[in-house]
Amino acid sequence: TIRDAILAGLRAAPKKMQLPPPDHLPLVGRRAIITAGPTHEPIDPVRFLGNRSSGLQGYAIAGALSRLGANVTLISGPTSLEFPRGVNGARVETAEEMRSATLAALPADIVVCAAAVADWRVDHATNSKIKKQPGQSPPVLTLVPNPDILAEISAVGPERPRLVIGFAAETDDVEENAIAKRARKGCDWIVANDVSTGTNVMGGPQNRAILITEAGVERWPRMPKDELASRLAERIAEQFTDDAPIAAKKTP
Amino acid sequence: TIRDAILAGLRAAPKKMQLPPPDHLPLVGRRAIITAGPTHEPIDPVRFLGNRSSGLQGYAIAGALSRLGANVTLISGPTSLEFPRGVNGARVETAEEMRSATLAALPADIVVCAAAVADWRVDHATNSKIKKQPGQSPPVLTLVPNPDILAEISAVGPERPRLVIGFAAETDDVEENAIAKRARKGCDWIVANDVSTGTNVMGGPQNRAILITEAGVERWPRMPKDELASRLAERIAEQFTDDAPIAAKKTP
Repeated sequence: TIRDAILAGLRAAPKKMQLPPPDHLPLVGRRAIITAGPTHEPIDPVRFLGNRSSGLQGYAIAGALSRLGANVTLISGPTSLEFPRGVNGARVETAEEMRSATLAALPADIVVCAAAVADWRVDHATNSKIKKQPGQSPPVLTLVPNPDILAEISAVGPERPRLVIGFAAETDDVEENAIAKRARKGCDWIVANDVSTGTNVMGGPQNRAILITEAGVERWPRMPKDELASRLAERIAEQFTDDAPIAAKKTP
Repeated sequence: TIRDAILAGLRAAPKKMQLPPPDHLPLVGRRAIITAGPTHEPIDPVRFLGNRSSGLQGYAIAGALSRLGANVTLISGPTSLEFPRGVNGARVETAEEMRSATLAALPADIVVCAAAVADWRVDHATNSKIKKQPGQSPPVLTLVPNPDILAEISAVGPERPRLVIGFAAETDDVEENAIAKRARKGCDWIVANDVSTGTNVMGGPQNRAILITEAGVERWPRMPKDELASRLAERIAEQFTDDAPIAAKKTP
């Protein structure tokens, strides 16, 4: 099989290539798409609506899947992070751009929507800076809904990835909201985080996740984001044992 | 004088301290406050209104003034930059926080307001994440004006810094708008930039400035932001030749 050929090649590769140890590459031959970071929705050339997201968790997941052998495309909103080694990275700004880049990267076996996509954008962004006029009222921002990338990927038809994972950043009723989100989006798993003020999850080095799957609710302990990423990657790999990869990238 | 004592100390300092050459420290004994970067105005715990600003230009000015011997306090909005060496740095998030930190750092001889402060903030930020409800309209964001730090510092009374410099990021009628801004704010100089799409000034390594002073308009060529910072710092130093420092920091 293709998988066997790749594994054989990796075993034969010289050490100095610094590839991951070839004895644990359960995701070789699998394609994964990860979205990460925030989106910025322009109001005018200098102002935008943004989401607080460092991108740390999504980047860590991209790196962890890559280390398990997956072919990883990371579609990132504005962050100050470098792409993990071995990962194909693409930078976008808005939810619309993130949607286009994600759909263009299909088909895939695994999609992890870790980005904090803005739910709304400003109806008409202007090309000129809105001037603050002394004595005048501030502008009114009319918002319109952004595309729902997670729901769209979950319902994409014949190309639907076998495992679609969404994230839920919640401040209240974390578990209940995450279970409802899984049903509403049609995705397979939800990784839910409590991002209330004081948890220091957003931008911080640690995370505490609740994993919602078809089988139920797993409450994971607080751990570094890198560790959470590795654990999630292993959990993903378990879903792909003993069968052949389904998705090959369309030739352009 | 204090200035002579500091200069003598610097001349006697061992080379390995890597201090700037002690033969050109025209701003020794002067206090400067620089604001830099954007501000983020919260909508809820995960969403905010932001301004596009990398902070590069403001950080470069802080570094350049410090290299000329000034005692520099850099008050920075959210950026991914490290504080220049020798500069006292403080991080803030919102316009209100930037105002408080700037006023608290007075008195100073020089204030450079290089930050891209959000003109408006959301009237009532919520402590819970605003939920996107299927079928419901997006929220309406009611904005209120933020404090005008530049105007306030320019009119601060007996503690008014001798040189107050504002920045103007414009997309249209750059020079005309900058001249009007100087008059409206009551500051001494305005450094105006054209940040239209395509100029790549915002976030980019280069800048082209128009300096508006009481004497008129200086159109500077396009140059790296570091170079523009050095040139502005020298220009500032010219204003402080041959007289004694006025501002000593209040004892806490």
